Order: sequence, then C-alpha cells, then structure tokens
Amino acid sequence: MPSGEDDLIARYFKPLATDPGARGLVDDAAVLAATGSDLVLTTDAIVEGVHYLPDDPPEAIARKALRVNLSDLAAKGAEPAGFLLTLALRQADERFLAPFAAALGEDAAAFRCPLLGGDTVSTPGPMMISVTALGRVPPGRMVPRDGLRPGDRIVVTGTIGDAALGLDLLQRKATAASDSDRAFLIDRYRHPQPRLALASAVRDHAGAAMDISDGLAGDLAKMCAASGVTATLEADAVPLSDAARAMVGTDAARLGRVLGGGDDYELLCGVAQSEIDQFLAAAQRSRVQVTVIGVAQQGTAAPRWLDADARDISLNKLSFSHF
Amino acid sequence: MPSGEDDLIARYFKPLATDPGARGLVDDAAVLAATGSDLVLTTDAIVEGVHYLPDDPPEAIARKALRVNLSDLAAKGAEPAGFLLTLALRQADERFLAPFAAALGEDAAAFRCPLLGGDTVSTPGPMMISVTALGRVPPGRMVPRDGLRPGDRIVVTGTIGDAALGLDLLQRKATAASDSDRAFLIDRYRHPQPRLALASAVRDHAGAAMDISDGLAGDLAKMCAASGVTATLEADAVPLSDAARAMVGTDAARLGRVLGGGDDYELLCGVAQSEIDQFLAAAQRSRVQVTVIGVAQQGTAAPRWLDADARDISLNKLSFSHF
Repeated sequence: MPSGEDDLIARYFKPLATDPGARGLVDDAAVLAATGSDLVLTTDAIVEGVHYLPDDPPEAIARKALRVNLSDLAAKGAEPAGFLLTLALRQADERFLAPFAAALGEDAAAFRCPLLGGDTVSTPGPMMISVTALGRVPPGRMVPRDGLRPGDRIVVTGTIGDAALGLDLLQRKATAASDSDRAFLIDRYRHPQPRLALASAVRDHAGAAMDISDGLAGDLAKMCAASGVTATLEADAVPLSDAARAMVGTDAARLGRVLGGGDDYELLCGVAQSEIDQFLAAAQRSRVQVTVIGVAQQGTAAPRWLDADARDISLNKLSFSHF
Repeated sequence: MPSGEDDLIARYFKPLATDPGARGLVDDAAVLAATGSDLVLTTDAIVEGVHYLPDDPPEAIARKALRVNLSDLAAKGAEPAGFLLTLALRQADERFLAPFAAALGEDAAAFRCPLLGGDTVSTPGPMMISVTALGRVPPGRMVPRDGLRPGDRIVVTGTIGDAALGLDLLQRKATAASDSDRAFLIDRYRHPQPRLALASAVRDHAGAAMDISDGLAGDLAKMCAASGVTATLEADAVPLSDAARAMVGTDAARLGRVLGGGDDYELLCGVAQSEIDQFLAAAQRSRVQVTVIGVAQQGTAAPRWLDADARDISLNKLSFSHF
C-alpha cells in the first residue's frame, strides 16, 4: 500500500537513483563503498523567496539546489560521489515535481553525481530544498579555505557579478543594455556553473579555495581572515562579462554590487607563485577561464581594493548574510 | 567582519565542532578520513508543527532532530561517524538557539556522533531542521530493509506506541491514567531513544532491519513488500509499556493507534531462526529490550495481525504519510 509520499518518491526520484548505493530508494539509508578516498561533505539549502524566486522555473530551482553544492565540491578539489536530497513541500504538485525531477536527473548525470537518498516532508511554509553532496579526494588532499599564504596569487574563475545583476533585473531594480544582456545575466542567476572541470587543478595547485556564494569581496575577506593574511586586489582586474560591463559602466555603486553581490558560484583560489603557471595551464586545458586579481600579503587588515589609479575603493556591504 | 550568520555559527555551533573533520566550521565542507569502512548515509528533516509541536522545548527539538537519524544508523548496523545540520530559522533567537545547541552538543557527545558541518538559512515559514547522519560499517555489511526471508523471526526493540499516545496527550485527544503515565508517554514522544547499543548485534545477526518511524504496522508492511514476503504477527506479543497498556485497555481503536501510530524510533528486525538465540543474547548484553512478535512467510499478501484468539485484526490506517 504505497502512501502518497512513497508514491511521489517512486514516481519522480526512483528513476534518478540508478547508483547501486542508492538501493533504489527503498531503504532508509544509502551506502558509499570504501575506496580509500577521503570523503568531502557539504550541505547547502535553498529557500523559496530567499535563494530563488517563487516564479523561477522548476528546472532552474532543481539545478541550482544541486549546483551550489557541486560548486563547493569543486572548490575543495573533490570529484562528486553522490548527493542526498531533502524536499520540504507544501503539496505534491506534479506540474512542479515532474520538470524538477527531470532537470535534477539531467544534472546528476551531466556532473556524475548520482542521487543516493533523501527525505520528503510537508511544510505549510515556503518550499525548501536541502542537498548534501559528497565527494572524494585522495587522503589528506581536501583543499582548505584557510590555506592562503603571503605571496599567493588570488585567482577567480569565470566572470563575477553576473548573478547579482541578473537578480536586480528580475526584481526590477535595474535595466539591462539589451534583451540579450538581460537574458544572459538572468541565466547566470538561475543557472550557476559548478567548476568541476577545474577540481583536479585546484587540488593539485591551489593552497586555498572556496566558492564565491556571498559575494567576491566578502568571501575573499573570509578567506583572508581564516588564513591570517590580508590581500591587495585590483578591481579592474576582476573579470566582467560584456553584459555586466555594459551595466556597470562608470557607476561606482554598481561596481560594489558586482564585487559584493552574491550567487556567483565561481571559485576563489590562492595559488603559490611557484604553482601559478601550471595552474593556469591546467585551467586552459580544462577550458575554465581563470583570472589573477591580486596577491595575498602578511597582515590582518581587511583586504584592500584598488582602482585603476591605485586608489583605495571603499565597499560598504561586503557580504550577504541571512540574519 | 563577521556577519550575523557567521556570528550565530561561531557562537552556538563551533563549540560542538570538535572533530578534526569539522575544520572548526570555517570551511564550506567537512572531511571524513578514509578508514576502509563503507559509509552509511541517512537524512531526515523535522518541521515545526509537523514533526514536533511549536511549544516543544528547544532541547527536545534538537535531540529529536539528531536522534531520528541515529535511529536509522542503528537499524543499518552502523556506528556513527558524524552529522551535518541544516537549520532554517525565521530569526536568530538566542532563547531558542542556546538551549538547542547545548542539547545537541550533549547528544552528539553521548552518541559519539560529532557535528561536522551544516548550513543556516532564513525562512519566513516554520522552522525546519534537517540532519544528514553518516555512519560506518565494514565493507558490504549495511543491513538492508529488503532482506526479510521466510522463517525469519520478526523482532522489535523497546515498547511500541508510546510516542503516538504521548502526542495524543499533548494534543488533548486522549487522557492518561495518571500524571506519571502522562509524563512518561510525552517523554517518549519528545525523546526518541536511538538503539545504537544494538547496532553491532543487528549487523551480526539480522538479515533485515529498519527503524519504526511511521508506525509498526505500516513499516512492517513496507519491509515485507520490499523483501517480497509476508508475515504473521501476534498483536498480543507487541511489547507495550505499562503506561500504554493502561491507556489501551480493551479499546480496539487505541490498539490501532499503538500499531499504526508513528514516532516510535524502535528497531524492526528480521532474524533467521539460526541466529535468533545469539541475537537475543547480544541484545541482553547490550541492555536493549527485544521482543519476537511474529514470523515472516512466503507470499505477497499484506501481513496478518492476529489477536489472542488467533482471529485477524483489521488495521485501517497503517502508516503515516505526509501527502
């Protein structure tokens, strides 16, 4: 006698649970075989109206829920091993669940991160999707946040600020230069790109890494504080997409939005001078754009951001916080 | 510049993250060292107003969130390795968080299951606590749900139905025989007892196991269906506490509540006849009460429940479902 909950799981999520460790989702637990690797664990939840908009497409919500976690695995130099999904739903709505599960399955296959298990609960409140992702690294090789050392080059992947500007567009706080710029920036907000192609290069060459989820400036400050160093950054070196560049123009407030806004899900790495050439070469082979934006230095002051004339830039709101 | 979220984590949860794999909660990921064990993964979320009552004490909510997951590990024969915590909160309320974190830390220590990491998000809706627990078993030794075989003795731990009756008392759907009975049953609802002391015996002697979270009758039916067998149970053999027995009396509806109600978090095991004596002896050594309540049989019909006169009992609502 399948209950509604079991039926929902059987219908939408069992087809995704093809990994033997998932045990077809009939058990209360999944199993990951011992392989001699360390296991890297990360968990990030997204809440309707907080991390995504109620009218975001179900496919985009599914992809974001998984990808923000895959982004953490990439930053730690880990290869995906699988994920657990907790869904808190007001109701079992097929029009939402069918496209949600289909997109989740596509991403799980594309990023080789199988669904291993999960939980489905009802809530009278907003929908919430919590993912715990597991990855593997050789023993002792997880790349930490707190490994930034004086002299390390500070590197970011991709382009910065697109997602924050895309959210501004969706919330009508800004207008884009063109329809195609608008579409590009909104897509960057809705579809983070986990840089898993760079995971092995990060593992082999970076001393410190994290993904940028709460804004480049704030997350860099966190990395510096955790590592007991400071840094000097060149704002002009921060890679912007053409669409972001067109919106930012010479507007200092919007530059702050780019450096301080969240949802980039690009990687922020510290790479020793002796490793930087090999890192850049490995990035090129993996076709992930990387850009050196500054250097770490001794000291405990907040990181300095310099403009094109080497004058200090003041950034007011450096990081997103929930509370 | 600690944000409110970082401050909350540093204040309440960092003191719990004493395991080296937690990396002091400064990283976006935790690491579990390779040990040659298989990793058992389970995740269960509890939602305010659904899985616990808004006026349940913060300490009880914390313990329940962790223990319902530890109960799954025990059922799979696993030793706890650690857990990840996702908190969705309306606000950072010290009067809630301080006792919540203190009790969580006590349980993490008592059950040797350290906090490894997590996520904290804001929600405008009800509070939700999602825990992913990790355990270890020797390679290939996770005890499955679908391993019940004809002839296996069906065994439960502890006493059944206390939590469902405790919830009825809290919701004023019933009255207890005495104040001490009332206190006992409510405590059983609020404080599940994960049977980790029995994990090694389950691993060594049980062919199938699961924890009873959605009611004994329904969960047994799920185990039979997953295993492709049926079973015959003696309702009179189901172990009841004195407090439950006093409430049930001769009320058939209330017997249904005991067998069909949820939140027991006792273990349901299938143990081959050849293993049953060793299993019972191991349970006695671990001081966990176990009771044989029936036997598995060939067939695919729903399990039969018999009364003291060997007449079939009909149970209407066999299992809790969210949807």
